[in-house]
Amino acid sequence: MKTHIQQLIEQMTLEEKAGMCSGLDFWRTKAVERLGIPSIMMTDGPHGLRKQRAGSDHLGIFDSVPSTCFPSGAGMACSWDTELIHQVGAAIAEECQAEDVAILLGPGANIKRSPLCGRNFEYFSEDPYLSSEMAAGHINGVQSQGVGTSLKHFAANNQEHRRMSVDAIVDERTLREIYLASFEGAVKKAKPWTVMSAYNQVNGEYASENAYLLTDILKEEWGHEGFVVSDWGAVNERVNGLAAGLELEMPTSNGVGDQKIIEAVRSGALSEEALDRAVGRLLAIIFKAVENRKVDASFDPEAHHQLARVAARESMVLLKNESSLLPLKREGSYAVIGDFARNPRYQGGGSSHIKPTQLDDIYDSIMREAGSSALLSYAQGYASDSDEPDVELVAQAVEAASQADTAIVFVGLPERNESEGYDRNHLRIPESHVRLIEAVADVQPNIVVVLSNGSAIEMPWLGRVKAVLEGYLGGQALGGAIADLLFGNVSPSGKLAETFPQQLEHNPSFLNFPGEGDLVEYKEGLFVGYRYYDAKRIAPLFPFGYGLSYTTFAYSDLSVSTHSMKDTDTLQVSVKVTNTGAMQGKEVVQLYVKDVVSSVVRPEKELKGFTKVALLPGETKTVTFTLDQRAFAYYNVELKDWHVETGEFDILIGHSSQGIVLTERVAVESTVALAKTYTRNSTIGDLNGDPKGAAIIQSMMSQFGGMMAMMQDGSELMMAMMQNMPLRALVAFSQGALTEQGLDDLLNHLNNR
Amino acid sequence: MKTHIQQLIEQMTLEEKAGMCSGLDFWRTKAVERLGIPSIMMTDGPHGLRKQRAGSDHLGIFDSVPSTCFPSGAGMACSWDTELIHQVGAAIAEECQAEDVAILLGPGANIKRSPLCGRNFEYFSEDPYLSSEMAAGHINGVQSQGVGTSLKHFAANNQEHRRMSVDAIVDERTLREIYLASFEGAVKKAKPWTVMSAYNQVNGEYASENAYLLTDILKEEWGHEGFVVSDWGAVNERVNGLAAGLELEMPTSNGVGDQKIIEAVRSGALSEEALDRAVGRLLAIIFKAVENRKVDASFDPEAHHQLARVAARESMVLLKNESSLLPLKREGSYAVIGDFARNPRYQGGGSSHIKPTQLDDIYDSIMREAGSSALLSYAQGYASDSDEPDVELVAQAVEAASQADTAIVFVGLPERNESEGYDRNHLRIPESHVRLIEAVADVQPNIVVVLSNGSAIEMPWLGRVKAVLEGYLGGQALGGAIADLLFGNVSPSGKLAETFPQQLEHNPSFLNFPGEGDLVEYKEGLFVGYRYYDAKRIAPLFPFGYGLSYTTFAYSDLSVSTHSMKDTDTLQVSVKVTNTGAMQGKEVVQLYVKDVVSSVVRPEKELKGFTKVALLPGETKTVTFTLDQRAFAYYNVELKDWHVETGEFDILIGHSSQGIVLTERVAVESTVALAKTYTRNSTIGDLNGDPKGAAIIQSMMSQFGGMMAMMQDGSELMMAMMQNMPLRALVAFSQGALTEQGLDDLLNHLNNR
Repeated sequence: MKTHIQQLIEQMTLEEKAGMCSGLDFWRTKAVERLGIPSIMMTDGPHGLRKQRAGSDHLGIFDSVPSTCFPSGAGMACSWDTELIHQVGAAIAEECQAEDVAILLGPGANIKRSPLCGRNFEYFSEDPYLSSEMAAGHINGVQSQGVGTSLKHFAANNQEHRRMSVDAIVDERTLREIYLASFEGAVKKAKPWTVMSAYNQVNGEYASENAYLLTDILKEEWGHEGFVVSDWGAVNERVNGLAAGLELEMPTSNGVGDQKIIEAVRSGALSEEALDRAVGRLLAIIFKAVENRKVDASFDPEAHHQLARVAARESMVLLKNESSLLPLKREGSYAVIGDFARNPRYQGGGSSHIKPTQLDDIYDSIMREAGSSALLSYAQGYASDSDEPDVELVAQAVEAASQADTAIVFVGLPERNESEGYDRNHLRIPESHVRLIEAVADVQPNIVVVLSNGSAIEMPWLGRVKAVLEGYLGGQALGGAIADLLFGNVSPSGKLAETFPQQLEHNPSFLNFPGEGDLVEYKEGLFVGYRYYDAKRIAPLFPFGYGLSYTTFAYSDLSVSTHSMKDTDTLQVSVKVTNTGAMQGKEVVQLYVKDVVSSVVRPEKELKGFTKVALLPGETKTVTFTLDQRAFAYYNVELKDWHVETGEFDILIGHSSQGIVLTERVAVESTVALAKTYTRNSTIGDLNGDPKGAAIIQSMMSQFGGMMAMMQDGSELMMAMMQNMPLRALVAFSQGALTEQGLDDLLNHLNNR
Repeated sequence: MKTHIQQLIEQMTLEEKAGMCSGLDFWRTKAVERLGIPSIMMTDGPHGLRKQRAGSDHLGIFDSVPSTCFPSGAGMACSWDTELIHQVGAAIAEECQAEDVAILLGPGANIKRSPLCGRNFEYFSEDPYLSSEMAAGHINGVQSQGVGTSLKHFAANNQEHRRMSVDAIVDERTLREIYLASFEGAVKKAKPWTVMSAYNQVNGEYASENAYLLTDILKEEWGHEGFVVSDWGAVNERVNGLAAGLELEMPTSNGVGDQKIIEAVRSGALSEEALDRAVGRLLAIIFKAVENRKVDASFDPEAHHQLARVAARESMVLLKNESSLLPLKREGSYAVIGDFARNPRYQGGGSSHIKPTQLDDIYDSIMREAGSSALLSYAQGYASDSDEPDVELVAQAVEAASQADTAIVFVGLPERNESEGYDRNHLRIPESHVRLIEAVADVQPNIVVVLSNGSAIEMPWLGRVKAVLEGYLGGQALGGAIADLLFGNVSPSGKLAETFPQQLEHNPSFLNFPGEGDLVEYKEGLFVGYRYYDAKRIAPLFPFGYGLSYTTFAYSDLSVSTHSMKDTDTLQVSVKVTNTGAMQGKEVVQLYVKDVVSSVVRPEKELKGFTKVALLPGETKTVTFTLDQRAFAYYNVELKDWHVETGEFDILIGHSSQGIVLTERVAVESTVALAKTYTRNSTIGDLNGDPKGAAIIQSMMSQFGGMMAMMQDGSELMMAMMQNMPLRALVAFSQGALTEQGLDDLLNHLNNR
């Protein structure tokens, strides 16, 4: 194949090669018929196929062919189930094959820096490890069916506000440990056919023309072998982009970009070899798509709907369940309240918005599951098109609630609140929803709130309800899933993939989101999500990793394969989990690593492993994890590599980030020595920290007398002053015993020059 | 005088001129006897004179002549009384004159970025306005007696950890609005004879060789006419320092610095004119000192002790007073508990540590005030030299407390916890103090805690005591002051000049203090102190500006001179305050300004005025403020100037930063137009924001049709996408209607080129 592609490139004209580097139209690459190079199609995802109907709008937001709408990324991540998302990916790919779509534009692995980001519903998590694992599962699933993916939006595209011009200023360590790590694991583990470069700038350069991101890191360090495609309309300077590693401009630039490439090659501003390399990468994927094409493929919409139901119920998170109000009994009377029960909120807005093959009516689903012994009523509660409370609708809901044993209230965020293209500016649900809850709570103590929303919300009304089920955006089969969970067909097993703060202001990015003008500085650094709430001792409303079940689990017998290891070794960790309740259920076992003492600032703990395990009542399973160097490392910017500092690490096992139940401590020894360089402003304390330096200081003490000796008087003040004193100060203080020349000699000696 | 100095400089040899630029010894400048240039002495302050005895230790930390120890800066600032600190400054200056000291090394105007900073007890506040006002009062007081001051430590010296090598990375706006503003007001209003450059680096350059700070800002912008002296041992590269505006190196460099200057002038690396300018500034102050010298000056130690008592009682802050436990009656029985009652903590450690002329025994002072009808007992409670609880001492205290009507417990931070030279690493008081409070609370409901500490502490025991008096470091007359307040001779009137957080982690600098290696990044930016707690909605333990009284005050009749003004106008604000209680007292009326809507990130409100007013029971006074441009402005880094954005501002009057009681809104119109520059990445929304641009966009809409028209469909998604779309994207999207050349022409038109 490589030879074939090489031969093709040699036969292509400059114009044909430049032409390969931008789209034919909104969705397709250009064919070169005389050479047998076909056109392939890509379409939006990621939680379902959005293939635009021929002849519909230019931008392609609207009419599209029906496809299965799975839960969006924010919900799927709460399943913590990489096998499940693999199945969902494979199902979506079957639909792609049926529609002759070669590449699905997804998944999105951007970190949820702020809960306000309008596109958070498409993204997985605030944690890079969880996000990259879910992304890898999705990619592997899609690609297992011969359909490519486009991991997006690379990188630091964490807001919609001014997304096409904003410059994200992120320090190198934060970029590596948080924002890039979320892509890194997915690229390395799952090898997406393509990666989509983001709209925004990163540290002063557009992501679409950022050689450091696209070439140095993505292709060279991580080994990405496919091509990079621009987000739609993201290209700033086409030639710079191509030189930096952006192979494909999308959509068509109507010839503008192609012409710039041609001129740049002719003028010598761009080497033809660079263009050839880009075309080589493009052709490799195009032919790969063609080879994997399944002619006459079809799919079973009903089976996919059922999979969507499973995915939804595995993703929903039980946040509160006072007095075990849930699961509901299949008898008694229920008031089902809220417009969402009949007009569900099940997906987000923008390019991912698809046309479902069918859509559950939640009320009908509940009716089916409740069975004939239960009495159901419905009240709309609020108008769908307004945030203002409707007195009449509230009164009807109160009436219904007052006559039932239990009220099930469906609220959350209307579609207009969450979309690609713009961010939220607060975390509140509409006043009409809040007012409804409060009014119902005035007459009915048994309230289950079922939430539909793509990202965290504030819940000032939480104390007034007994149970809360977070449904996220559950896809087309959300009704069946909600009914399954409410009536206990299955126990809830989702765990939050993001922190829910008590209030927006507590979010780490709050003071620096969405930035000023075209500058957004990530001043919270590494402290994103739970890393921040942990360190700042700010209690969240619900912590990362949190979720309740109808059964209970006990943890025991945490063991590690060694208590003392080198950073080149791996560590095996095992722990037993037992279902101590009366119902079968699933538990997400979470492993965090804590660096006990570090010379650099580190989060208190970081997620480094998780497993979802199904357990029958009374059953015990042993869960195992393997940790390698990366689980203990931080990114050392001077070394330009991941580095483990010699010292102790705690292995923490928990059922949430704030529910750590077992801990083991291991000592890890680094095999990498960090070079130290001393300057005239290195301190006496710095020298004392290394044997060679300490010997020199001792010798000085005996020579200099007076001043130096006094500093050893043992008082904290004197000790601190000495520790913090730079070597250059000794030239003056030693009264001639150390000259400037002597200091230079000393530094040369210390630095082994 | 100028001519005289000029003539002297012309007569000086290069060696003599270089020699003027460093100290003769630890405390004195060099004389040039043949030209009649005298040596002058400077000594440590700022809350009292620390003149080292002849023949004592080299570093000069220890034995010194007795002088009056006034409350340290942290306490004095809580008086919010610029007249009082003026009196204190004048008293210290009298002592300087008596000891032939020409310059007092203080006050310190560094901002309390973190409560951990070891030297916070010397500094005034987390707020630059309060800090600069108190510093100006201090300077004016000292200099009114013909003694110079040295405003220190300029700038961004906000930690002791690695203070001689650390580099403080502070963005320009934060530097200007917070850290420099604290010096700026004092320099402009009070004209300190000298300014002391800090040990640390600021944005990559040592403060002692930072031309931007020492010359551009301090001398040229602010008009500082005196000289700059290095902090002791702060000089890194002497010649760079001199060129940057550091006139005097202290202490002596034993000839090393002088020789470098001589060589630099000879080699041409430093111009002789620069050296002459430096010598001119030095001689001007030296002769000013000589002219102002009062021969045979003396002072009245007893009168100064009484002033110290007034200063202390005006500074102490009543934090809690449940059930009006305070003031105490002069009858009944009191258990006075805690070693501090007999061995008071009254000043901080390091260069400011002075030898008092006398020192109150707090127990004795209480005994005197309580009178003969009251029964007093004393128990030590904890050992002075250990943080570990002493079971026997606690038992004795419990016994004493159980037999009294009320326990007065003296706790806080031992001297070893707070000093120049090192920072704290937590905000706790010793476990022995906490245990004492808890044990006493087990047997005695009526507890008054009196605190001695130089900076904020955590109070996990707060709920167990009825009253808390924050005494800070009250100076040598603290005993009398505490007795005055406990028994109600005067009502407490201090207000916190810093936020007390619930826990250290809530402090804004927490994640970035004290930095990594030699780098500390001020990532919290403008959000220092209350600016952060306000914005982040994190409830402090006690807010900035807070303090209770034995009487009550009512505010009324807030009025402003206009509701609509230009930024070049001034605004008069007046408000009535009435003492509605039964006791005379003082209230600190605080004025904050809030920018209602701003295009740049701004704190919710900022202190822009305060007045301390004394009121008899039933008395009403009208307090007035005048606000000028600066009260509404932020520092615009592009303009390199303070700028008021046209819009509405709220004038907030309160008794604390969280106790705002009256508000008036005024509209301020800017007289400065900010130039806009459009680029190919300016967005359609940017153009729509200005009339010229909006017209162009309208015209495009009509020309381009299709795509553009669709974006006007009114959906939030489409509107947002259009607003955020950069102009360069139109080249591709307009399908030829806008060319690259056309875009360039458009930009030139917009930018008026």
